Amino acid sequence: MIRSLSSEFIGTAFLLIGVVGSGIMAETLSDGIIALALLANAIATGCILFALITVLGPISGAHFNPAVTFAFLLRGDIAVITALSFIVVQITGGLCGVWASHVMFDIDIFQISTTMHRTGTAQWFAEIIATFGLLFVIFGGLRFRPEAIPALVGLYITGAYWFTASTSFANPAVTIARGFTDTFAGIYPGHIVAFILAQLIGVAVAHIILRPLFAAE
Amino acid sequence: MIRSLSSEFIGTAFLLIGVVGSGIMAETLSDGIIALALLANAIATGCILFALITVLGPISGAHFNPAVTFAFLLRGDIAVITALSFIVVQITGGLCGVWASHVMFDIDIFQISTTMHRTGTAQWFAEIIATFGLLFVIFGGLRFRPEAIPALVGLYITGAYWFTASTSFANPAVTIARGFTDTFAGIYPGHIVAFILAQLIGVAVAHIILRPLFAAE
Amino acid sequence: MIRSLSSEFIGTAFLLIGVVGSGIMAETLSDGIIALALLANAIATGCILFALITVLGPISGAHFNPAVTFAFLLRGDIAVITALSFIVVQITGGLCGVWASHVMFDIDIFQISTTMHRTGTAQWFAEIIATFGLLFVIFGGLRFRPEAIPALVGLYITGAYWFTASTSFANPAVTIARGFTDTFAGIYPGHIVAFILAQLIGVAVAHIILRPLFAAE
Amino acid sequence: MIRSLSSEFIGTAFLLIGVVGSGIMAETLSDGIIALALLANAIATGCILFALITVLGPISGAHFNPAVTFAFLLRGDIAVITALSFIVVQITGGLCGVWASHVMFDIDIFQISTTMHRTGTAQWFAEIIATFGLLFVIFGGLRFRPEAIPALVGLYITGAYWFTASTSFANPAVTIARGFTDTFAGIYPGHIVAFILAQLIGVAVAHIILRPLFAAE
Repeated sequence: MIRSLSSEFIGTAFLLIGVVGSGIMAETLSDGIIALALLANAIATGCILFALITVLGPISGAHFNPAVTFAFLLRGDIAVITALSFIVVQITGGLCGVWASHVMFDIDIFQISTTMHRTGTAQWFAEIIATFGLLFVIFGGLRFRPEAIPALVGLYITGAYWFTASTSFANPAVTIARGFTDTFAGIYPGHIVAFILAQLIGVAVAHIILRPLFAAE
Repeated sequence: MIRSLSSEFIGTAFLLIGVVGSGIMAETLSDGIIALALLANAIATGCILFALITVLGPISGAHFNPAVTFAFLLRGDIAVITALSFIVVQITGGLCGVWASHVMFDIDIFQISTTMHRTGTAQWFAEIIATFGLLFVIFGGLRFRPEAIPALVGLYITGAYWFTASTSFANPAVTIARGFTDTFAGIYPGHIVAFILAQLIGVAVAHIILRPLFAAE
Repeated sequence: MIRSLSSEFIGTAFLLIGVVGSGIMAETLSDGIIALALLANAIATGCILFALITVLGPISGAHFNPAVTFAFLLRGDIAVITALSFIVVQITGGLCGVWASHVMFDIDIFQISTTMHRTGTAQWFAEIIATFGLLFVIFGGLRFRPEAIPALVGLYITGAYWFTASTSFANPAVTIARGFTDTFAGIYPGHIVAFILAQLIGVAVAHIILRPLFAAE
Repeated sequence: MIRSLSSEFIGTAFLLIGVVGSGIMAETLSDGIIALALLANAIATGCILFALITVLGPISGAHFNPAVTFAFLLRGDIAVITALSFIVVQITGGLCGVWASHVMFDIDIFQISTTMHRTGTAQWFAEIIATFGLLFVIFGGLRFRPEAIPALVGLYITGAYWFTASTSFANPAVTIARGFTDTFAGIYPGHIVAFILAQLIGVAVAHIILRPLFAAE
């Protein structure tokens, strides 16, 4: 259990370093061309996801994401106590990842995001799609090509940065952590709860649709 | 059959979210530098294709494309009634994908494209090449490396966005759906029929050339 | 033999469509930011190489390149008559690929490049390095991971566009064909012979160094 | 032993060609948009790393990095004399790679970097994270998916260019070599020692954390 929790902690911390660190670097260097910043952000996130899921998947399943842990709980694949411990460790790891990014880029460690545009029905709908899609590739991969899951998740997220209007948070731990950085990847804390609700709706929709779709014949 | 049709519906819908959603995001953020928008569009489309074909291929074959379904029909690999059902579902799924993108990006749901430059002999020739190339990698992959087909199609399309003058629609369901979005990925509806004809010519050329090329020895 | 030659013809033609077509598209859309055009050009070329080598490798070995064919000849892996036929077909295929690109992009079919900067000792040295590196990944891949060769060559060339000063032609058939396009990928015909000589020196260096390095123990 | 040393020499030389050459090309062509130059630099480096590790891994382990060699020494996987020889050859190879890049790009062969911003606590902390992360994916890959190591390292470094504030040198041989180029990838020689110390701290941290994390059960 300690190894699983360490795996979820390190993985979620590194995921946030990937998201927040690359966002800071990209915004700083992109001369105000936001598409270029987002491209770097999306590629860097996909790269680190591939690496993290490959090396930590065999230890803890490489969730790094309370929505994923919750989806496994709904399927009965994980115990309630394990799920709760995972979620606590994911949130803590995510925060540490944000703070480590701030130290690396020599900016204030403790920040609160002032990014105000991540709200409204359209954004929430995007988070439902984004979370559904993430679970879709995870459970489809588990069913047919488990060894492809690191590539599936990495490439899905790289793409979803672009094709979902919210840039695909799809992860409550990531959402909370991104409330604590006033940089490219930030989200105003007052908008976090609605994002997480949308993500949970995505989990529910996925549970209903994916169970028959990927059922063993 | 219901699972196959659901698979083709979800897959084509997500493919259009990938194409149209990333096109909207990319155009909005790229400061008028079209190459940057197209790069994001091409990468996002390749990413989602890899994911969709990996997880839905084992269920329905992951066509998401009437031209591909028609090519399998010509080879006698699929029944006529299945092929027709696939095509209906692909077109419906594609439309739903476009509308879902519009909801996510908070723009009018029902739109008609006014993009006028996707016409003329050169564009049609590009669509013949694009469709031939797509079937070339699919049937070559099926013959020699079936497990590589998701990567083959994803990378082929990412490249073909650039090396075919039409940005490689190569898919009648995608072409029809893109008539219903007045955004980056749109095509004026009056130009759709000629595109689809060119794609069908590409299928015919592929049928003639690829059969002997990839025949079992 | 006819299948092998068809494979080399189609493969080299599609490779040139990949290189020249994406060059035209990229230059047109990149607002004069050459790095962006080269990035699209490099990615598109790597994508099509991965696809072509995967589906045609089992038929003809997927050389598409007289330098590669010559290197196999030096190793005694291919008959002289086969090698010569391959080279003729590669050059013909390359030219057809260039002309197909011109048709797709609606520009004059027959062109002569006026790009003058691809000459001088530094560029030739770059071509020696580029060709050596290409054979290095091919023969290393053949020795240890044959199934990875499509990825090895595709990624090597995508990288080598950037880290060799000549953008890594590394292929006499490609070099000749690019003399016949006055677009982004062109090379002034008077500079072709020296490029090919440098490529052949790269083959010789590779033959000397790689034989002991990758020898069976 | 000679084959191993040749492998480390060629690999480190080509790695530096990848890093420095692509940096020169990218800076020259990117119109002052640094994010675009860094994107090309990061992609080219990832590509060449994938290729080098795939073809040289079976010969020498494909360290190309004294920090990696030192980490293997700490684990008792390599003899002291071998480790020392590797390190000498890596540093020599790295320098030759830098000089080869200068010849290709037709600039002064012998240069000293004047890039002054790679110093300070934040940058050093970034190098600790970068080196820890590199060893994390290498040792995790060795434990669970050895055949994925070329992709793991290539993608990790492509991402880490963006999410670590130092652009992830994570390699003493690379750090030393980059002191000898006054181009995009350079580092002022007076700042090299502190970078290497940070990298060694990263090795120590990795040794402590990764041993229990990736221990056989």
